[in-house]
Amino acid sequence: MTDMTESVEKWGIFELALSGPADGNPFTEVSFGARFRHKNRVVEPDGFYDGDGVYRVRFMPDTEGEWHYETVSNVDELAGHRGSFTCVPPTTPGNHGPVQVHNIYHFAYADGTPHVSVGTTCYAWVHQGDALEEQTLETLKQAPFNKMRMCVFPKHYPFNANEPPLYPYVRGEDGQWDFQRFNPAFFQHFETRVGQLRDMGIEADIILFHPYDRWGFATMPPEADDLYLRYVVARLAAYRNVWWSMANEFDLMKSKHEADWDRFFRIVQESDPYQHLRSIHNCRRFYDHGKPWVTHTSVQHSDLARVPEWREAYRKPVVVDECRYEGNIEKMWGNITAQEMVHRFWLGTIGGGYVGHGETYLHPEDILWWSKGGVLHGESPARIAFLRRLLEEHAPEGLDPVSREGASKGEDYYLFYFGVAQPGRFLFTLPEAHQYRLDVIDTWNMTITPVEGTYSGTFMLELPSKPFHAVQARRVDS
Amino acid sequence: MTDMTESVEKWGIFELALSGPADGNPFTEVSFGARFRHKNRVVEPDGFYDGDGVYRVRFMPDTEGEWHYETVSNVDELAGHRGSFTCVPPTTPGNHGPVQVHNIYHFAYADGTPHVSVGTTCYAWVHQGDALEEQTLETLKQAPFNKMRMCVFPKHYPFNANEPPLYPYVRGEDGQWDFQRFNPAFFQHFETRVGQLRDMGIEADIILFHPYDRWGFATMPPEADDLYLRYVVARLAAYRNVWWSMANEFDLMKSKHEADWDRFFRIVQESDPYQHLRSIHNCRRFYDHGKPWVTHTSVQHSDLARVPEWREAYRKPVVVDECRYEGNIEKMWGNITAQEMVHRFWLGTIGGGYVGHGETYLHPEDILWWSKGGVLHGESPARIAFLRRLLEEHAPEGLDPVSREGASKGEDYYLFYFGVAQPGRFLFTLPEAHQYRLDVIDTWNMTITPVEGTYSGTFMLELPSKPFHAVQARRVDS
Repeated sequence: MTDMTESVEKWGIFELALSGPADGNPFTEVSFGARFRHKNRVVEPDGFYDGDGVYRVRFMPDTEGEWHYETVSNVDELAGHRGSFTCVPPTTPGNHGPVQVHNIYHFAYADGTPHVSVGTTCYAWVHQGDALEEQTLETLKQAPFNKMRMCVFPKHYPFNANEPPLYPYVRGEDGQWDFQRFNPAFFQHFETRVGQLRDMGIEADIILFHPYDRWGFATMPPEADDLYLRYVVARLAAYRNVWWSMANEFDLMKSKHEADWDRFFRIVQESDPYQHLRSIHNCRRFYDHGKPWVTHTSVQHSDLARVPEWREAYRKPVVVDECRYEGNIEKMWGNITAQEMVHRFWLGTIGGGYVGHGETYLHPEDILWWSKGGVLHGESPARIAFLRRLLEEHAPEGLDPVSREGASKGEDYYLFYFGVAQPGRFLFTLPEAHQYRLDVIDTWNMTITPVEGTYSGTFMLELPSKPFHAVQARRVDS
Repeated sequence: MTDMTESVEKWGIFELALSGPADGNPFTEVSFGARFRHKNRVVEPDGFYDGDGVYRVRFMPDTEGEWHYETVSNVDELAGHRGSFTCVPPTTPGNHGPVQVHNIYHFAYADGTPHVSVGTTCYAWVHQGDALEEQTLETLKQAPFNKMRMCVFPKHYPFNANEPPLYPYVRGEDGQWDFQRFNPAFFQHFETRVGQLRDMGIEADIILFHPYDRWGFATMPPEADDLYLRYVVARLAAYRNVWWSMANEFDLMKSKHEADWDRFFRIVQESDPYQHLRSIHNCRRFYDHGKPWVTHTSVQHSDLARVPEWREAYRKPVVVDECRYEGNIEKMWGNITAQEMVHRFWLGTIGGGYVGHGETYLHPEDILWWSKGGVLHGESPARIAFLRRLLEEHAPEGLDPVSREGASKGEDYYLFYFGVAQPGRFLFTLPEAHQYRLDVIDTWNMTITPVEGTYSGTFMLELPSKPFHAVQARRVDS
């Protein structure tokens, strides 16, 4: 029994470790969890077996004050342990809590701070060994990204011939993977990386399944899939920066059907006490993002002009997690120019959505950012950083489309983007009731040039006749 | 009666002029035409009243040898005139006859010479007065275009405030247009311009109706529409370079309905002895190009990647007559960069279609090529000329798509285009049975760089990691 008074910051992790049986199969034979109580409210996270006879339960308190807990188990030595702790205000800089949907189409942290999602993808970065993984973390410190798409399972694919240092399962005596016995070291490593991202302010968009597999993890039996999901959620849900992505390219996983994906969503939904964001990423066809367990629309698509259509279709935030990658590989999904990548970010932004980055430049050792991480070689991240700064300064709560070229935050801020068009002038329409200052923005050269005077209503403005330019209008009356 | 033996080149114009009644309304009260006979074959073009008591009938013979004719009229003095002429082989350089559909998706002249359609648009160029019109003709001499989209009726629209020098109708005593009395001078002028285009090897894609009107020509009663169509066809069908476009942006003409467009097509179809190409141009929604009187699919659309879809939908040639215009005006349909225009030409080409050019740069006197003609200011025409030369040299009979990036002429020639992608290498698949020489093409800088060696089957080729590049494969075995 534990009853020391401990303090845990709000949205931090309280973790309790207990010793229990190491024989038999603790992953399937032992149930373990705890009931956390604050006043009349009870939250019941599942615990998990972490190997070597150690059982853990993790809890992310979202309310300051006293919390009391009592463990629950089908094993006597793990049941009935009681204790308490005090949840104190966040102490870690940048701890704003988990990201949630805000204002239908946008995101905010639990403390109300807006979250402008600017993602990138390194599918298999946690499977590359410490040297490269630490380089990836170093790169991310300088990069503009606040969300990382990353797979739990290792990746088998062109440019991905290497075996991972760790596997999520152990092998049975027959040499086959035992899908009922997890490898705790694998998950300890994985959650260390998730925690490091959290400490850098980066959301971990955890991809639970994906089709690119040579080990059998993509084709486990349903019971193994479900056990896996519950185990991952039990281990990771207490990390405030977790998002759940049921799959990368779910529609390419031929052994799974619509009912499987529905079930996976429901398992995650019922297992996660914190209701982290949930979505699923497509290759060719969309999952029905209108289903109630989907919190936002994760999209792979090249036509960013369709973001408003997807917003309307599902009335949820649209995150175009994959719009092809900046790079030069032979695959058409991985060889767009930096300029095109930046263009797609702007198009998606003007459409009222969020866009994700990825990079696939040929590398002598096949270290491509999109999968393995490492360093960034491209020219888009600097421009994406410029866009992120602009949005965080002027429209952190998100933009909603007002026309094909324009988006706004209410009547306070307007952003117009012209893409491959090069207007020498443009007829703008702003509210008559307010005054605005305008800036002409070169999205590629990252310049912001103020326009003389203030503007209101409908007016024609001279523009530089160059492509990839934008205009912002900032309301200056009170 | 005329019976002199005259000679007319094949696909030239035989014209017979007769004097007849000038009183009453010759346009509606006098029927006039002729029956042209070669051996057992009879062709019956309508004639037309050309003012000042002169009636004309024009005939474009398509078969060499003796032709006999006899006029037909409800007026005695115009009926029963007989004569003959000899149709001789084409004597005018570049006279290959009218353009027809060839091999389902492509075009060829009547003599079998392939026609690679490379169009442009100057909607109202014939309504600008001689000085500007002659400048337009001078410009076209140096330009890469072999098809001109041009309206019969004058244009009312931004940048088009000027009145035309001539009107297609005369006014009645009430000062209103008399839609039953054409102005022959207007049509004489119009057909002079059509003839000048013909003499430069340029097809005249004649737009019969359009919505941009302040005179009432877009909202005439049905009887007037029909009379107009028959009059235009009677005057112009004998020009071998004529294509009929029922409308520009038909779907914006709210006073006309689907049945009207169907009727217009049928009137043109039944009146035109030569069955010139017929289509109709959309704004937002397509007319059903599957209808039997549509010879090819005329499209306004910005997404050139959809050309293969439209080919399959209608199984007819696809001509994207409007994909926005190179320019810098405030309207988003008229301000794409030259690079984007060239990109769209290549995309449409790879899709197995044909693309049309237009240009809308702001001009101090509102002389924008897209409507008025004049001179070209843009950078796309030189690149379009480069593409046209390439196609005419290697694939004049047209390309059919074989993949998203590639198109071919059978197994003789392949063209791959990468657009905004910048592959550093690409996996090509060519037939195993043949040998090919390859060239890397910079579509913007207009360079063709041969690749060392010959290639066959599937192979990876190093590429320059730059956007807007293409690769062609020319079969070199026999």
